[in-house]
Parts: sequence; C-alpha cells; structure tokens
Amino acid sequence: MTGADFDAWARQQLIDVEHALEAWVPLAAPAGLGEAMRYGVLDGGKRLRPLLVMAACQAVDGQAAAAMRAAVAVELIHAYSLVHDDMPCMDNDVLRRGKPTVHVKYGQAQAMLAGDAMQALAFEVLTPDDDGGVPPALQARLCWLLARAAGHAGMAGGQAIDLASIGRALDKNALCDMHRRKTGALLQASVQMGAACGACGDAAWQALSDYGAAIGLAFQVVDDILDVTQASETLGKTAGKDQHQNKPTYVSLLGLAAARRHAEELRLQAHAALARSRLGAAAGALAVLADKVVEREN
Amino acid sequence: MTGADFDAWARQQLIDVEHALEAWVPLAAPAGLGEAMRYGVLDGGKRLRPLLVMAACQAVDGQAAAAMRAAVAVELIHAYSLVHDDMPCMDNDVLRRGKPTVHVKYGQAQAMLAGDAMQALAFEVLTPDDDGGVPPALQARLCWLLARAAGHAGMAGGQAIDLASIGRALDKNALCDMHRRKTGALLQASVQMGAACGACGDAAWQALSDYGAAIGLAFQVVDDILDVTQASETLGKTAGKDQHQNKPTYVSLLGLAAARRHAEELRLQAHAALARSRLGAAAGALAVLADKVVEREN
Repeated sequence: MTGADFDAWARQQLIDVEHALEAWVPLAAPAGLGEAMRYGVLDGGKRLRPLLVMAACQAVDGQAAAAMRAAVAVELIHAYSLVHDDMPCMDNDVLRRGKPTVHVKYGQAQAMLAGDAMQALAFEVLTPDDDGGVPPALQARLCWLLARAAGHAGMAGGQAIDLASIGRALDKNALCDMHRRKTGALLQASVQMGAACGACGDAAWQALSDYGAAIGLAFQVVDDILDVTQASETLGKTAGKDQHQNKPTYVSLLGLAAARRHAEELRLQAHAALARSRLGAAAGALAVLADKVVEREN
Repeated sequence: MTGADFDAWARQQLIDVEHALEAWVPLAAPAGLGEAMRYGVLDGGKRLRPLLVMAACQAVDGQAAAAMRAAVAVELIHAYSLVHDDMPCMDNDVLRRGKPTVHVKYGQAQAMLAGDAMQALAFEVLTPDDDGGVPPALQARLCWLLARAAGHAGMAGGQAIDLASIGRALDKNALCDMHRRKTGALLQASVQMGAACGACGDAAWQALSDYGAAIGLAFQVVDDILDVTQASETLGKTAGKDQHQNKPTYVSLLGLAAARRHAEELRLQAHAALARSRLGAAAGALAVLADKVVEREN
C-alpha cells in the first residue's frame, strides 16, 4: 500500500468513524451528561485505535458493520480513560487534544459520570438490540476482548501500576509490564477486535496479536520520547509532565537514543509479525500504521 | 412461597453469589487494584440485585449458569457506582456498608480505577471466553440489558440529573424520572436479565419489566424514607444526608406519610404485574422480594 493509498483509505475511515461516533454518542442524555460525553470523545484525537480495528478487519476481509461498532467502542474506552486520567485525583491535567479537559469544562462530578457512561456505551454499541447486522457470537467475542483489555488485567491494571510507581525506580521489565497493560492492551485489542470480524486462522490470529503487542509498546516508547522532545502545542496536551511528576519512562530509564532504538526494534517486530500472518497485501494498512506509530510527532 | 421457604432459598443464593464474586473478582490484579475492587464489592451489601436476577431466572425456569454471571455482573455495576458516588467530587461520603468507603481506605485515584475496573469486569464476566455454558446470543443480550441500564439512559443519566438537582425544586414527575434512571433502571435490568435466561413470552416479559419498574421506584421511595427515619448505624451509611445536601426526595416533596402510601402503592403494582405474568408459583421469590423491598429497615 502506497502512502497516498493509505492516506485516502484512512481519510475515509476517519470520516465514517466520526459519523458513527456522532450518531451513537447521545446528545440527548440528561442534565448535560451527553454534552460532556461528546466533548470527551468527538472532534479530536488521532483515532489510532479505530484505524487499527478497521485495518485489521480489512486484512482478514471481515464484516465492516461489526468492525465499525468495535472501532467506536474502543475509542469510547480510550476517551473515557483520558477523561478519568486527567482528573485532579489522577494526573490533574488541564489540557487534552488542545482543549480544556472535561473536568475543567464541566466539573469533576460530571467528568467522572461522563467517563463512566462512555464505558457503558462502549458495551452497548457492541451489542445492538436489533443485532445491527452483527452475529451474536461476534458481539459476545468483541465484548470479551474489549472488557479484558480495559479492565484489571489490562488498562486499569496498568494505571494502578503507574500510580504506585510514581517516584520509584522500575527496571525495564517492570516498565514494559506496566505499559503492556496501560497502553498496549487496548491497542492490541483493537487489532484483535478487527481480526475477530473476519475468518482468521490460529497462526494469523497469533501473528496479528504479536503485531498488536509490538505496536502497543512502540506507541508508549514514542509517547515517552515525545514527552521530552515536543512542546505542549504540538502534542495538544501538557508536555514534560512525566518528568515533572517523577514517573519512570523509557527515556528516563534508557536515555533518549536507546529509547529511539527500542522504538525502531518494535517497528521491525511489528513488520515481522505481519509477514508471519501471511496476509500479504491485505495487511497493507496495518504495515503503514506500524510506521506511523513510530514516526509520529504528536 | 412461605417466608421460611424464601429465607432458605435466599440464603443459598447469597452463598452461591458470594462464592462467584470471590472467584471472579481478582485478588491478583496489580498494584493493590484487586484488593480495592474486592473491598468495594465483597462482604457487604444486601445483594438485592443478584437476588432479583436469580428469582426472575427461577420464575422462567432459566439457565442458572447464565443467571449467576448476570447476578455477579449487576452487583459489580452497582458496587462500582457506589465507589464512585462516594468520592469527594460526588457525595463525599466516608461510610458505606458500615465500613470506610473505598477512597477513604485506598485513596481517590485507586477508588476511581477500582470502580472503572469493576465496570469492565462486569462485561467480562458476562462474556466468558470459553462460553461458560452460556449461549453467545444470551451473552450479547445480557450485555446490552446491563450496558443500557448502567449508562447515560439509565444509572449514569440519573446521577447526572441528581447532581443538577441539588438545591432545586423538582416536581413529582421529575423526581420519578430521576429515580427511574438512577436506581430503577439497574433494578429493572436485574429482573430482565434473569428473565432473559429462560424462555419468556412477550406478555410475561412485559409484566416482569413492569414488576421491575415498580420495585425499582419503590426501593428509592423507601430509601428516602429510611434516610430520615433511621440512624446511620442501622443503614450502614450516613443517614440524613439527602436533607443535609438539600436534595429533593419523596419525603421532602410529599411528606413522610404520603411517601409511605406511595411505597405501598408501588408494592401493589409489583404484585399486580406478577399476576399478569401468569407465572404462578414460579414467581414466588419475586413476590416476596417486592414485600422485602418495601418493608426493609436498612
């Protein structure tokens, strides 16, 4: 897949995902809750997770309607985690995606509720009452993949390790374990959810899962690099805060040059996994996404 | 069903539900997260929602393995909502089920994460990877019922109305709307999830849903009554806080005597709905639960 082909493909996916988010995140929810939910998830973000879902679905020639629900659901989980993570009792951040964070704009109580309701909505979107063209067995499978990645063994567990690690020295294994859960689990689940939307043999499933694990970790290594090399304006969020909060990062542990080499290794691992999947050109968008994750500047 | 028969039945259900919660809420989750989750859900609570699930399942001769997962899931959602609701940015409460609240014991950040992880776990429990003896279509149906009841249209939406209503006068319709969402939706969903575990015709489904709506509202009316008539020791949570926070309640709106009459009316509505269901003696536990909801003293 050429860069231009990918760009055209991604542009269309992003339009479709945005339409689906617009349609499914309710403005009509009571007492301003819908407004806070929409503020937290619409009109911002790179939508990397939805792109991974759609690219993996394409790689296995999967069901687009199911993948779109998975894409919206995983973005809702990601967005809710940011809303909660930004709150004063967690990271206490005021800037996200270039805008005031949800609790700054709507108050802490509404931000907490909006995050809670976004998580519930993710699972509601995955299990449409009228089945929405998605076979029930696939609905259940997608719920399980997402719930496991979002919960104690995945994202929430990683955040708990993150909390407990402030000001402490972690070795590289412990740092990797934290990030595999905190960021990696949901990125890997995005790939797995897309792959679950089509027929996918065990070997290809394992290869795509390996791909997801590699880019999941690469994403965080690059995040740590950008946190020290980019300005807040470029990032759309507060730069330098890991260092400020005395959090262990790949950069603080390995140094900047070694962190960059590690990101490059993970990119190669991702491409090697795609080769093992034997999906060929169908996995073209996944290949480009591996590069984008490592080359990104915000 | 006699009172003694109900008591024996309920005692066994509670033992089974507690075992399932013990087994499925992970102690091994990292960095103390599992401990905070278990503290938030184990060893406390009346387990009304699980009892409603099991009683409704019994009424339709449903699949016990599925109902047990639904019972655990709905209790996890209820427990997470209490953990978040007790936090300083919401109700700022220090006592729950006779113990310090989760944020008092583990800190606000861990309490927020524990609540988030409990919600994710609810949906993980509903969609077992190995199918756990629950047909995938039922898994998906249970997810949808729970997600809708927990989210913006249900519990979270009701909490948002609650937040917005502090210090404001609500009329009876607005108060009912708030409580139908905030408390009623999850109680009704408990009945519906139990009913979904068996074969249940449209008329019986509607009747059981009506039953769930009636006891859902009755529960809150009684909650409002107990808030002014009982001591904190009996309640296991802080008494008198609605009045203290200047929140509209059935008692502040109708007066104590009229609130009691309203609870009695709702109890009769619940029994009338059970009669319409034509489930006969199989719905015996549901009938007793309607009485218990209205007669409870904590």
